[in-house]
Amino acid sequence: MPTFPPPDFSDAKFARCPDANFVPAPADGVLPDGFFSTTNLPTYVRRNGQWVPPREPRMDSGLVLDRDGAIWVREGRNIRKGDLVAVGEKEDGSDGIFVQTHMVPHDADSDAFTFMSSEVSREKPIDYAHMARLLIEEKERGGYPVWVTGPALVHSRARADMTWFIINGYVGALLAGNAVAVHDIEASIYGTTLGMTNTGEITQGGHGLHMRAINRVRAAGSIAKAVEQGIITDGIMFSCVKKDIPFVLTGSIRDDGPLPDVVTDSLAAQDAMRIHTIKATFAILIATALHAIATGNMLPAFVQEANGEMRELPTICVDSSEFVVSKLKDRGTHQAFGVVTNAQDFMHILRLYVERELEARNTLPSAAPRASADAHKPAAR
Amino acid sequence: MPTFPPPDFSDAKFARCPDANFVPAPADGVLPDGFFSTTNLPTYVRRNGQWVPPREPRMDSGLVLDRDGAIWVREGRNIRKGDLVAVGEKEDGSDGIFVQTHMVPHDADSDAFTFMSSEVSREKPIDYAHMARLLIEEKERGGYPVWVTGPALVHSRARADMTWFIINGYVGALLAGNAVAVHDIEASIYGTTLGMTNTGEITQGGHGLHMRAINRVRAAGSIAKAVEQGIITDGIMFSCVKKDIPFVLTGSIRDDGPLPDVVTDSLAAQDAMRIHTIKATFAILIATALHAIATGNMLPAFVQEANGEMRELPTICVDSSEFVVSKLKDRGTHQAFGVVTNAQDFMHILRLYVERELEARNTLPSAAPRASADAHKPAAR
Amino acid sequence: MPTFPPPDFSDAKFARCPDANFVPAPADGVLPDGFFSTTNLPTYVRRNGQWVPPREPRMDSGLVLDRDGAIWVREGRNIRKGDLVAVGEKEDGSDGIFVQTHMVPHDADSDAFTFMSSEVSREKPIDYAHMARLLIEEKERGGYPVWVTGPALVHSRARADMTWFIINGYVGALLAGNAVAVHDIEASIYGTTLGMTNTGEITQGGHGLHMRAINRVRAAGSIAKAVEQGIITDGIMFSCVKKDIPFVLTGSIRDDGPLPDVVTDSLAAQDAMRIHTIKATFAILIATALHAIATGNMLPAFVQEANGEMRELPTICVDSSEFVVSKLKDRGTHQAFGVVTNAQDFMHILRLYVERELEARNTLPSAAPRASADAHKPAAR
Amino acid sequence: MPTFPPPDFSDAKFARCPDANFVPAPADGVLPDGFFSTTNLPTYVRRNGQWVPPREPRMDSGLVLDRDGAIWVREGRNIRKGDLVAVGEKEDGSDGIFVQTHMVPHDADSDAFTFMSSEVSREKPIDYAHMARLLIEEKERGGYPVWVTGPALVHSRARADMTWFIINGYVGALLAGNAVAVHDIEASIYGTTLGMTNTGEITQGGHGLHMRAINRVRAAGSIAKAVEQGIITDGIMFSCVKKDIPFVLTGSIRDDGPLPDVVTDSLAAQDAMRIHTIKATFAILIATALHAIATGNMLPAFVQEANGEMRELPTICVDSSEFVVSKLKDRGTHQAFGVVTNAQDFMHILRLYVERELEARNTLPSAAPRASADAHKPAAR
Repeated sequence: MPTFPPPDFSDAKFARCPDANFVPAPADGVLPDGFFSTTNLPTYVRRNGQWVPPREPRMDSGLVLDRDGAIWVREGRNIRKGDLVAVGEKEDGSDGIFVQTHMVPHDADSDAFTFMSSEVSREKPIDYAHMARLLIEEKERGGYPVWVTGPALVHSRARADMTWFIINGYVGALLAGNAVAVHDIEASIYGTTLGMTNTGEITQGGHGLHMRAINRVRAAGSIAKAVEQGIITDGIMFSCVKKDIPFVLTGSIRDDGPLPDVVTDSLAAQDAMRIHTIKATFAILIATALHAIATGNMLPAFVQEANGEMRELPTICVDSSEFVVSKLKDRGTHQAFGVVTNAQDFMHILRLYVERELEARNTLPSAAPRASADAHKPAAR
Repeated sequence: MPTFPPPDFSDAKFARCPDANFVPAPADGVLPDGFFSTTNLPTYVRRNGQWVPPREPRMDSGLVLDRDGAIWVREGRNIRKGDLVAVGEKEDGSDGIFVQTHMVPHDADSDAFTFMSSEVSREKPIDYAHMARLLIEEKERGGYPVWVTGPALVHSRARADMTWFIINGYVGALLAGNAVAVHDIEASIYGTTLGMTNTGEITQGGHGLHMRAINRVRAAGSIAKAVEQGIITDGIMFSCVKKDIPFVLTGSIRDDGPLPDVVTDSLAAQDAMRIHTIKATFAILIATALHAIATGNMLPAFVQEANGEMRELPTICVDSSEFVVSKLKDRGTHQAFGVVTNAQDFMHILRLYVERELEARNTLPSAAPRASADAHKPAAR
Repeated sequence: MPTFPPPDFSDAKFARCPDANFVPAPADGVLPDGFFSTTNLPTYVRRNGQWVPPREPRMDSGLVLDRDGAIWVREGRNIRKGDLVAVGEKEDGSDGIFVQTHMVPHDADSDAFTFMSSEVSREKPIDYAHMARLLIEEKERGGYPVWVTGPALVHSRARADMTWFIINGYVGALLAGNAVAVHDIEASIYGTTLGMTNTGEITQGGHGLHMRAINRVRAAGSIAKAVEQGIITDGIMFSCVKKDIPFVLTGSIRDDGPLPDVVTDSLAAQDAMRIHTIKATFAILIATALHAIATGNMLPAFVQEANGEMRELPTICVDSSEFVVSKLKDRGTHQAFGVVTNAQDFMHILRLYVERELEARNTLPSAAPRASADAHKPAAR
Repeated sequence: MPTFPPPDFSDAKFARCPDANFVPAPADGVLPDGFFSTTNLPTYVRRNGQWVPPREPRMDSGLVLDRDGAIWVREGRNIRKGDLVAVGEKEDGSDGIFVQTHMVPHDADSDAFTFMSSEVSREKPIDYAHMARLLIEEKERGGYPVWVTGPALVHSRARADMTWFIINGYVGALLAGNAVAVHDIEASIYGTTLGMTNTGEITQGGHGLHMRAINRVRAAGSIAKAVEQGIITDGIMFSCVKKDIPFVLTGSIRDDGPLPDVVTDSLAAQDAMRIHTIKATFAILIATALHAIATGNMLPAFVQEANGEMRELPTICVDSSEFVVSKLKDRGTHQAFGVVTNAQDFMHILRLYVERELEARNTLPSAAPRASADAHKPAAR
């Protein structure tokens, strides 16, 4: 993962740039006219002649100057009347704000006639070995990988594989919706998801099982209590509880139930997610358009190292169709790397490659059985 | 649209059925063990020897007996401690609850070897003339067509066409998310959606325009006030306000802003949507997986006429891929009729066929210009 | 794989059926008016009071009575003037021809309300263990598995995996187009496919490499000669040549080159393919709409055992989208079982499960390295 | 459609370039080692100090010098032993061959942060008015629009619309496969396509109707004779015959029949198609991956005007998914403009916009009824 330095602000082109201009917000939750709307790229604000990066970067927000002179990236709805907000529409420094659009070395000859130049395609090879190494290195350096998953992940094999990543330390936080937890818990209690067994058979009366699973957790009071009471005995949510991995379940309009842990207010839920995206050093978005775009909106495109160097924040987006990845990029998450495949197969092969790499390094955790042994049952009981 | 009668409860097979059994809910928001989980099909509960249909049918809910002896379909989260809830898992009447699964006459010879037997396919012709007639008849009989739309609808031509349906009386209620209204309002104020013009060009600095549009409405206080103040001057939301068509904007985790009218709590939002699904006699779900499934969850599969006869509730689901329609059906909305096409093209042709049919009937509204005249500008100013 | 018996022709409903009627073909390649058009289902023709199944069944063809009294399924284009061809449009025996449409036991209660009832969906679990067992059993019983593949299979890992299946005896015949062989041979000679490396990088000037690969094989005279001359040194075509596995490469309008082995006339190519589909006892169709439908057209839906019992011919269709599988079914290949995933991932996991199953049976071929060891290089050199 | 000039070969960078080097082909159908592999971009070969464009440009071919000093683009398979073929791998002139990769003015600031920057997306508006104007202008200037269609076009409404374009002079040549003609003729004779009526109903015994349609044309001897004999009475093929519009039907491995006009040898078929692609000034590729890529392979990316100026050859590719357009671009047809929608809807709206534009110009052909009047029946009888 190559790094790149901040802009050289001693360059002559920055000499004429003014300090950024801040004006007070007219009301709670309302930005001033002409506010600067942030992107997810490295951004620098000139203040007292110095170019400083605002804290907690994300796109689609304002730049707020606090009393101590620090500049923060803040969503419009979180602005309070009188907050000092940067104004300006230029990103080239001429309004005192500079956005670094060249994050990577440019291709020497990007206009040459080539085949296979599309960005996302099911016809491109998937480099699992590379992704496995990135993920292992992220764990080794103490990074914070954020996993964002849709319910397709909870069917059968993928549930066991996701559990494996949780218990082996590859998950900093899990961001998902009610349905992921519901399917996972239905599987733990009844052995089905939406009434379908793990070989894809439909069970009689199975359509009500997810409602019964939800009801039992509501009766228990929370997922953690349902684990404690022995109602949930394996799987993704069980492992998060047992391993103290934070999870955020956000509510949506299509939710059944919901489970008691779900944050049903979407603004509170965004705030809960952002606690993790601020810390994120790696993101894996699997089989979810909604949560992938939500996370992409909050995620900077880069990570800043202690020495000031930056690198692209690895953002892997897995979906069955090219469309979701393109949509994510079209909403500004240009750094997303698309993998067009079935979510279950992705999880299984990624785990396999992580295991192989660990085996090659002689560090395979002895407690964890090989993928071959537990493909059809959860790894942790 | 053929009708079908309720079951003949004088049939011998119902003679041995008991009354349904009701037990008190153990806590607020918690159903009793063994609760009956509803479907969207016609359902009858035996009480005092009579088979009565519960009120306000939907799937994934409980059956609650009130003090007056009426039976209601209620979501688990809306149950209060002590509410009397029906228990039983059988749908054949043997627990006092009968579900009518045969809503339509069966195909005489469904096993014959045929081509083109898949349910949803882009290769099937789309019968716009039939849909146009259904929609016109729905308006004539005073029905309540619910439109559920995703943001793809708001680009360019489709926005003018949706506006046309609103101002000409084909929309009972509009159910959508924040993004639909944001794009529509960005188009009214700035002439772009997500910074893209209506011919698909990208504008410089355009990525911030949706944030500026949101900010102006937040400053005004509501969409209706922004219409009143002349900030929003045409389009979908403008027409809803001017024509007093109710709309529900529900929050999601990926929302920018949001607009002040958005119901950010997903449970409150479900309640707000259900006010309209209870009244629905027709549903058109366009280019939205999330809201389509949310609506499908709340929608009965049938409409009951005053004379007791029932008919299938026409549910048209439009999407670019077969997947969304299949997913909707897989979540139980089996009555959904899939149209695999681009949402903008669907809207344009449906409007064209409605206009043709009206022209044939000599009832084309004189105030409304033909599609040919206003394809690239909003119809209402 | 459950079997089912032929119809019981002693049943009263067959008593009144006449012998089938045969009339001479009016010209070469032209069937008589009212000809019986075949399906891929078990079919019986009444002749001299006996119900006999025609030989070499396939759909969309005629039934021809030869001089020895045998009845054959023959494409219209292969009919000669004067050939005796069965006429009749009924499939219920009343024209002397009976088609057995009920190949499998019917679901007891197919009308019950269920979730997840769609036939093909990316949301359904994929039972690799089951497919691996079927494939191993097919090899053990001396079956003839036909593999039909598109070019997506030739990128990177999948090429090594396909090679593994060939050299380990799981491939009866390989049916493909020019592109599969071109990509495979480009990979062997230059290490790229369409100028893209196996990690997805684009090489300068790479767009011409497939043309250079084709040119070298054309200069050699054939794929086998290019193997002999050491031009092609590994991969799918190399292994077919070395292991004497028959392959048919059929020409298409989009072909570059083509390679000298390609059968460029589509009718000759159909005849060449049919030699293998007549023998097929198992079919795997991967990442190809064109060849999958071509094969489906020629393939009976069943295999008849020596004892007269029949079973469904297992037909696995793998594609990134539900569409191809639905299209295949819509063209009459109703027995196709759809797997919605990336072709490369499918191959990798299927191989893994076959290896696991063999390991469990202690029969892993000692010469073949584990998938872990050769993921990024071809298995056979 | 902006034009661009040839390169300025008086520029200093061309001063040091040598003449191109030609060496004899070693055998029939075999190019010499190191041959220059062409692209679809404007190309210039230095010969006797002059830069000349080779004739009949296409990609994936060689450059052959004839006895008269002219240079031709020729497929490898059409090379004869001893033909003089250009060698060289550089495209920058240093081997005497220069490829003009910058066909259009570059975006001033292509690195700015933007939304909606993906090339092909169902979320982008479709500018039908622009396409309609281009098509009308093409007709007015006497251009040669090549239409390439898949069978999805032949269902119902789209068949009437395609017929309209043929009889009104918008089609220079029609390139398709057997299936397009079979479905069209089945519709003319039996009113069905693959046994499905134009409202999507399945007919009993309908699966054989396409075979009966094929058989009748085979009996007649050709499509033109079947038109003459009154067997085919309307539709696409009927109109091509009546209006003398050339068509090429190319064979494929999945063909039923085929019809007698089909060119079953794929190399002969490529030659037959290329007669039209050489003349093409406009290309519309609808609902066909195979023929779209085949045509893209043969089509230059540009048209050269009489004055030497060049312009991009407008290439519109319509498909239900982004994948086909991306695949076409990945095979080198970078100029393709993607429209992601249902083929039937595309045809209907494009025709509507052409009619509107003609109406605005007062040149609507009086013989042709409006789309409204004949949506469900063929236009020409």
